[in-house]
Amino acid sequence: MPDGFHMTPDEFRRHGQEVVEWVAEYMERVGELPIASTVLPGDIRARLPEAAPEEPEPFAALLRDLDDVVLPGITHWQAPGWFAYFPANASGPSILAELVAAGLGAQGMLWATSPALTEIEAHVLDWLVDLLGLPPHFKTALGPGGGVIQMSASDSTHLVHVVARDRAVRGGASIADLVAYGSVQAHSSVERGARVAGFSHVRSVDVDGVYALRADALSEAIERDRAAGLVPTIVTSAVGTTGTGAVDPVAEVADVALEHGLWHHVDAAWAGSAMLCEEQRHHQAGAERADSYTFNPHKWLFTNFDCNVLWVADRAPLIATLSSLPPYLRNAASESSEVIDYRDWHVPLGRRFRALKLWWVLRSYGATGLRHHLREHIALAAELGRRVDEHPRLERVAPVSFALVCLRHVDGDDATDALAAAINARPDLCVTPSAIGDMRFVRVAVGQTHTTAVDVKRLWEAITGAA
Amino acid sequence: MPDGFHMTPDEFRRHGQEVVEWVAEYMERVGELPIASTVLPGDIRARLPEAAPEEPEPFAALLRDLDDVVLPGITHWQAPGWFAYFPANASGPSILAELVAAGLGAQGMLWATSPALTEIEAHVLDWLVDLLGLPPHFKTALGPGGGVIQMSASDSTHLVHVVARDRAVRGGASIADLVAYGSVQAHSSVERGARVAGFSHVRSVDVDGVYALRADALSEAIERDRAAGLVPTIVTSAVGTTGTGAVDPVAEVADVALEHGLWHHVDAAWAGSAMLCEEQRHHQAGAERADSYTFNPHKWLFTNFDCNVLWVADRAPLIATLSSLPPYLRNAASESSEVIDYRDWHVPLGRRFRALKLWWVLRSYGATGLRHHLREHIALAAELGRRVDEHPRLERVAPVSFALVCLRHVDGDDATDALAAAINARPDLCVTPSAIGDMRFVRVAVGQTHTTAVDVKRLWEAITGAA
Repeated sequence: MPDGFHMTPDEFRRHGQEVVEWVAEYMERVGELPIASTVLPGDIRARLPEAAPEEPEPFAALLRDLDDVVLPGITHWQAPGWFAYFPANASGPSILAELVAAGLGAQGMLWATSPALTEIEAHVLDWLVDLLGLPPHFKTALGPGGGVIQMSASDSTHLVHVVARDRAVRGGASIADLVAYGSVQAHSSVERGARVAGFSHVRSVDVDGVYALRADALSEAIERDRAAGLVPTIVTSAVGTTGTGAVDPVAEVADVALEHGLWHHVDAAWAGSAMLCEEQRHHQAGAERADSYTFNPHKWLFTNFDCNVLWVADRAPLIATLSSLPPYLRNAASESSEVIDYRDWHVPLGRRFRALKLWWVLRSYGATGLRHHLREHIALAAELGRRVDEHPRLERVAPVSFALVCLRHVDGDDATDALAAAINARPDLCVTPSAIGDMRFVRVAVGQTHTTAVDVKRLWEAITGAA
Repeated sequence: MPDGFHMTPDEFRRHGQEVVEWVAEYMERVGELPIASTVLPGDIRARLPEAAPEEPEPFAALLRDLDDVVLPGITHWQAPGWFAYFPANASGPSILAELVAAGLGAQGMLWATSPALTEIEAHVLDWLVDLLGLPPHFKTALGPGGGVIQMSASDSTHLVHVVARDRAVRGGASIADLVAYGSVQAHSSVERGARVAGFSHVRSVDVDGVYALRADALSEAIERDRAAGLVPTIVTSAVGTTGTGAVDPVAEVADVALEHGLWHHVDAAWAGSAMLCEEQRHHQAGAERADSYTFNPHKWLFTNFDCNVLWVADRAPLIATLSSLPPYLRNAASESSEVIDYRDWHVPLGRRFRALKLWWVLRSYGATGLRHHLREHIALAAELGRRVDEHPRLERVAPVSFALVCLRHVDGDDATDALAAAINARPDLCVTPSAIGDMRFVRVAVGQTHTTAVDVKRLWEAITGAA
């Protein structure tokens, strides 16, 4: 063995082609597999040996176990009948870019450690500023803001809470007095991000009849807190909540945030992708005055996890919080101030070449192709919503939002739970049973890569059959 | 176009084979490419169009730009002449597992969203507890501790600071009074993690003559802070610092931490991999009494970024800090308490199938193969250290640590900087110029996947030629 135990380039060639074939076949059969894994707790572990192998195993054994051990424990998010949670859609160009990034094995922590990683990321995120109709000062090339890829919207939301916290503390506030705000329908990552950032006061602001944050209630909460000697610090508004897809009044929140000096973070984790379509942009009117904005290409833009985008209106406070320069990271480029070093833009130091997949997706589909598919998903959801409205035993619990439909059985919670259970008992469909307060409902999120009218028709037949 | 703008499985097959071939050729030629990118700031961006493409581009254009746009901006971390920073080594099985994980596109946030992701991760990390000689209570299957994959050691270190902070606050302390400790040689992520977690007091404890934390100085600092009314909360000890590979006295730090009730975190980000070799484990004696331990398979275990492992001795405070259960994530498995949900173990909610590559690496090499390569790297570094000691114009600035050699020119800083510059002027070598205080030195980290005695010999000739 001239090169020890390593896989040689020729072996990589051969096994790589086997793996590509396995993935291609998976793409072909994912629509036929039962979507939800039915293993019981411990089933997968029971198939694994007690201890790590002492001796090398052949590649064929790894491939065999993909079918024998892994697949039974996979719930198939890429199935066309996937309507659960939010989509986590992927695509061929994105998957292959992940392979290239892994093969290059380059680190983008500093501009100098691989300039292409930093420059392509900054450039592609600048493209997206225009594609989503966001303001030019979010662009890294123009500033004072800029964009960066993070792992998840939870990370971005946590991070802006840290940055807003530090801004307040630099201004003389005590950390124990800081208050973070979001609606009662805000994603769990908002409260969690605030708590992890050390906020002990997190307010859940009332919503209106369509589950959108009430700006008047926000104002009142801020004034109450201020009167109590606390320091209102940051508010998150959602463009498309996870619960029902509610759209908070971003412009009104911007007014309140500006009036009271709060950091305003816009969480468009899922619905941000829809902003490629100009007719959807009115939903985020006011975001041009926000301090930060996050969205996940890994949800609804055919880019596999992980790929979250965070833009800030001003990168100075972000870098002030995160920058540090130990001697082993010093280099001429960083000291020239002609480059940005993304290690100063998030908690992790190391970073892989995630921009490659986003670049490849944007080029492979073109803006035209992306809009085509987003509009198709939105139209399918609208049609499903109309059918729900016309059905005597069903009702929507919220307006159809982008490509999300929330419905329930008119007979109440038990009938609604039974409806969800009947749909999920089918091997070719998956939806999420959920609740607002005590009211149960069924969440249907359209947006998986290969979901078409045929799949929505099958879902509708399952719904009406069970209702 | 029957399926819109999507790449079909057959197109994926074809383009996948092209990409596998591109990566295989990259592996073959990476040793011939100039290691350090020589582009200037803005060069890569200048090659990209001003706006995102409206229309789809053919896959051939993406592949062509890998050579034309990307490669000139890549610094080749996978080159056998890479001795800079720490290694970020990768391997064929790991790269192909990343492809499979992207192709499956499954989410492991809950056990229920794909049980294989959670169970294989927990199981493989339990294997590693034994492989690294760590205590059985770190195993998820046994508890009360457990292991989880995170993105980076910075994330893990930040997270344990948050958990220790919350434990102290639950015990009645004020966040403003908490104190975090590490040595003056601790990685920048220790101070940064503490600051991001909201610590306003971070102490850099003195080191001894070999740059290891002085436990007596730690005790004194804790007693001084306690006398001042502050609350000593967490201490990080390093097994292999980034600066010089110094090994803190983990057992003594454990004594101090236990005596004063501090959380004790062990940062073995780089050197943890060496613990597969039993003869290295004395360096981490005492880690069995730590509250948490982190190491990066993505540094020195042939597993491409990202793959960081965090073990905690007790998972209860971790989950207490991070758990939340919005209605859309409720499910029978989570409520049964028979499973773990990794979303409660870190800041992000979503997570991809990173355990697959670790599983494939452990099986492809076997423990025997991994030990073979680790011992080879360690032996190469030891031999280089001996040569430095014998050379009249060179000296080591610290003991050879695992596979890290830190050396300087006896004529001082200018001669040392010139030495580093001469090495880095060569296209086939890369080292990191660094400093301790004002003393300049050259860091040589042996550990890239394909680095052999031939490469170290070439490096030595470059060193002696310049010295």
